[in-house]
Amino acid sequence: MTDISMIEAAAERLAPVVRRTPLLSSPFLDRIAGRRVLVKAECLQHTGSFKFRGGWSAVSALPEDIRARGVLAYSSGNHAQGVARAAQIHGIPAVIIMPADAPRLKIDNTRALGAEVVLYDRAGGERREPIGERLATERGLTLIRPYDEPQVIAGQGTCGLELAEQAAAEGVTHADVLVCCGGGGLSSGMALALEARAPGLRVRPCEPEGFDDVARSLVSGQRETNDSPSGSICDAIVTDSPGEITFPILSRLAGPGLVVSDDEALRAVALAFLRLKIVVEPGGAVALAAALFRRDAIAGDAVLVVATGGNTDAAQFAATLSRPEE
Amino acid sequence: MTDISMIEAAAERLAPVVRRTPLLSSPFLDRIAGRRVLVKAECLQHTGSFKFRGGWSAVSALPEDIRARGVLAYSSGNHAQGVARAAQIHGIPAVIIMPADAPRLKIDNTRALGAEVVLYDRAGGERREPIGERLATERGLTLIRPYDEPQVIAGQGTCGLELAEQAAAEGVTHADVLVCCGGGGLSSGMALALEARAPGLRVRPCEPEGFDDVARSLVSGQRETNDSPSGSICDAIVTDSPGEITFPILSRLAGPGLVVSDDEALRAVALAFLRLKIVVEPGGAVALAAALFRRDAIAGDAVLVVATGGNTDAAQFAATLSRPEE
Repeated sequence: MTDISMIEAAAERLAPVVRRTPLLSSPFLDRIAGRRVLVKAECLQHTGSFKFRGGWSAVSALPEDIRARGVLAYSSGNHAQGVARAAQIHGIPAVIIMPADAPRLKIDNTRALGAEVVLYDRAGGERREPIGERLATERGLTLIRPYDEPQVIAGQGTCGLELAEQAAAEGVTHADVLVCCGGGGLSSGMALALEARAPGLRVRPCEPEGFDDVARSLVSGQRETNDSPSGSICDAIVTDSPGEITFPILSRLAGPGLVVSDDEALRAVALAFLRLKIVVEPGGAVALAAALFRRDAIAGDAVLVVATGGNTDAAQFAATLSRPEE
Repeated sequence: MTDISMIEAAAERLAPVVRRTPLLSSPFLDRIAGRRVLVKAECLQHTGSFKFRGGWSAVSALPEDIRARGVLAYSSGNHAQGVARAAQIHGIPAVIIMPADAPRLKIDNTRALGAEVVLYDRAGGERREPIGERLATERGLTLIRPYDEPQVIAGQGTCGLELAEQAAAEGVTHADVLVCCGGGGLSSGMALALEARAPGLRVRPCEPEGFDDVARSLVSGQRETNDSPSGSICDAIVTDSPGEITFPILSRLAGPGLVVSDDEALRAVALAFLRLKIVVEPGGAVALAAALFRRDAIAGDAVLVVATGGNTDAAQFAATLSRPEE
């Protein structure tokens, strides 16, 4: 099981390649939020999201002979690119199983990173896990799960190690840490890292309305599911329910969850463009949206935010910037 | 005159506030350029451009009693914001003289940063310098020139100190450093820093077609001027001619210059969005455009690029992303 020593080991393996993403801020955002807002821009990570951390951690942790046969991942996009790039740099094959309705850019990028892409019908109810398990068996590939995988959680936890240092440098030792949350890999990894390194910082998972399985699970104490398997503009962070491995960690260390509307996520995308000069996808902006538009649900004079990914289509992004509300 | 010790002193004054901007890259950009492309994202600096460095350096270098009376700057926008923010944090007045045809966002931002904005008619041929000098005299303000000011050049030079370290960490010790260039403050400051810290790195100023006064001046050996005072989409880096102080430095240490078309600058904006997840304004993208589209004019297996600013309007940016060529 993932613990701080596994996260530290992942950080050592990541050190030669990972990008230490900056902590950004703007007096304009502080004014909206009513407190200091410090944004860790993981959209600037390799492949445009924090997922490179977990992908690299898992691939690099494999024994060399196993790794050489290749890896397999199923993902709505960002995990796919993270694993594909990690495999490409290691010089090993990668097979990625993606929903046919994933954004075109993510499918194209994954192929351009050298991976073989296998599509499945998510909207029609087809499940990805059986496809992945069959291919793994047939070709001797190692399945890299997107969040229910201790080495992936350890890799995502390295984001927490960096944030603990960066927050301390800003004089912030007690604050909420708002994290965009799907299956909970990043939230749980960061929660473990912060428990050890910055116990005054508490992870609060953030989700879009209608897909708030983690928030509801933290309330009920058991893994809840969403009514719909897809259909959110925040496609990057939609999962059926919190992970089996991640949920007990979140239950012990994180929450309560925060939920924002699609409209608020899009406003956060536009404000990140205007004030931070970063490109964030809607699913990567829900935590910033919560910081800006849920100020009464947050305590303290500073809030930490992870902007988790930036893999958005030009057309979608341009439409967001052109909305009359912006 | 600015030298390495003045740059080091500026770096010490900047240390508590400056953002150490990351060096970004993408295998997709490397493929277009035919070599490694490492992009220092100064658009992520406070106020959205490298200009905060020079503004802070100059304001913080003033004797306290002089500083308390306030500062004055004339600027097409980014210098204005850098000086305004530096003054705001220091708690002193700032008056900014801006062209009436500057982007609305830059004027609004400068006011929101607490500065008093005075507009002048650039397109009609009015000159900003006499206005600035009159106001400085009347109110006891200290004029902070945008580039022909040793402490401003020293502040911009701190970007070169960081780049020297970051390039070395990437194993790059001999390469061209492509820098978007207006009056030459950043290019000359970085050239001085690199001369001392990374002599294998050479600054090459980059400009838009029709406003290539620096490139032509480096060829002729004297300060050339542009035919038109304004009208480029790269408004942030349009000046009449290289500076009196900056040109001798550039002449000794930098060049030859590189020139790109407006279309190439806009393509670089779109590629920086798609591949690096950063927001760059057209004037801040000319160096990236040169790296991507002037490959035969560049030597070596890696090229360093400074993305100098990201203060672009949402409508302009959305239009750039929606262009059919993208």
